[in-house]
Amino acid sequence: MDFEEKTLSRQEIFKGHIFTVAVDEVELPNGLGQAKRELIFHNGAVATLAITAENKIILVKQYRKAIEQVSLEIPAGKLEVGEAGNEKAAALRELEEETGYTAGKMEQLYDFYSAIGFCNERIRLYLAQELTKVENPREKDADETIELFEMTLAEAKEAIVSGEICDAKTIMAIQHWELMLGGSYG
Amino acid sequence: MDFEEKTLSRQEIFKGHIFTVAVDEVELPNGLGQAKRELIFHNGAVATLAITAENKIILVKQYRKAIEQVSLEIPAGKLEVGEAGNEKAAALRELEEETGYTAGKMEQLYDFYSAIGFCNERIRLYLAQELTKVENPREKDADETIELFEMTLAEAKEAIVSGEICDAKTIMAIQHWELMLGGSYG
Repeated sequence: MDFEEKTLSRQEIFKGHIFTVAVDEVELPNGLGQAKRELIFHNGAVATLAITAENKIILVKQYRKAIEQVSLEIPAGKLEVGEAGNEKAAALRELEEETGYTAGKMEQLYDFYSAIGFCNERIRLYLAQELTKVENPREKDADETIELFEMTLAEAKEAIVSGEICDAKTIMAIQHWELMLGGSYG
Repeated sequence: MDFEEKTLSRQEIFKGHIFTVAVDEVELPNGLGQAKRELIFHNGAVATLAITAENKIILVKQYRKAIEQVSLEIPAGKLEVGEAGNEKAAALRELEEETGYTAGKMEQLYDFYSAIGFCNERIRLYLAQELTKVENPREKDADETIELFEMTLAEAKEAIVSGEICDAKTIMAIQHWELMLGGSYG
């Protein structure tokens, strides 16, 4: 079976700082004709499951304009231009800027697309352990207002149920943490 | 601490079939001034972790134009207009259209935002069990070319490592399945 959709033409709609929007006209495989594909292009991001010596997860509370609500998430950030291929350093930078911590041990857990149906944002998720406070941490972005939380696994799972945690990458990280701890369902 | 970013103005950039793009000018909290927020508005989606009587996960292979690659994912689809509040029926419809199965038992697992930093797409993830083949299943969308796979947990985890599975909702579903089975790490 042939799957590929060949690009016949691309119309660029918007070029922003966070993403670019385009509409492609494609030739469908298997003689199915033509179709339009609305697409978002994004530079990619990093995120970190950071576990403290007390076996707590570090979470960042921040306002998310897209949903007009605050949200509790693992530390994360966009890749800056030229950082592709250097995701681990980017993850350490975001961890330091948002939480004031650095990690003695960083391990890549997953590399995934957040919204594959229309967007190419790729997120690399790390596990950070052996955390230590940085004396003069790099400052966070000027437009960020954040608050830090540390939660046990039970507290984090409750926050998923209550909806306080409602972000895919954070739920994925917490599941992974539960699997690491050998936890069972329920 | 105040978190809210008040909308000063909104510029609508693009209104498509899949999403709408806007740029908001916002007033930051705590006297931090103003900023722009690039936003994607999406109608929401449903996805299903479908487990067969042989304890295999049903996966759908399809081409994803945003990444110019095929991808192996759990059955999923966008909510149609007027389906908000009726996500379970939408999930059953997508399951039937894409796989030919219906489920005797549907349970909501998670309700999350896929790309919360800039997009309000909300995905409701279900667990489908007691699967049976529908005799004359509803047809899939005319522009979809898909192929079905069934995998054991070990095979699905291998497909994550190999990158054949690279989609957030699918990784989340597989981790949930592993937790259900009481699996431990490694």
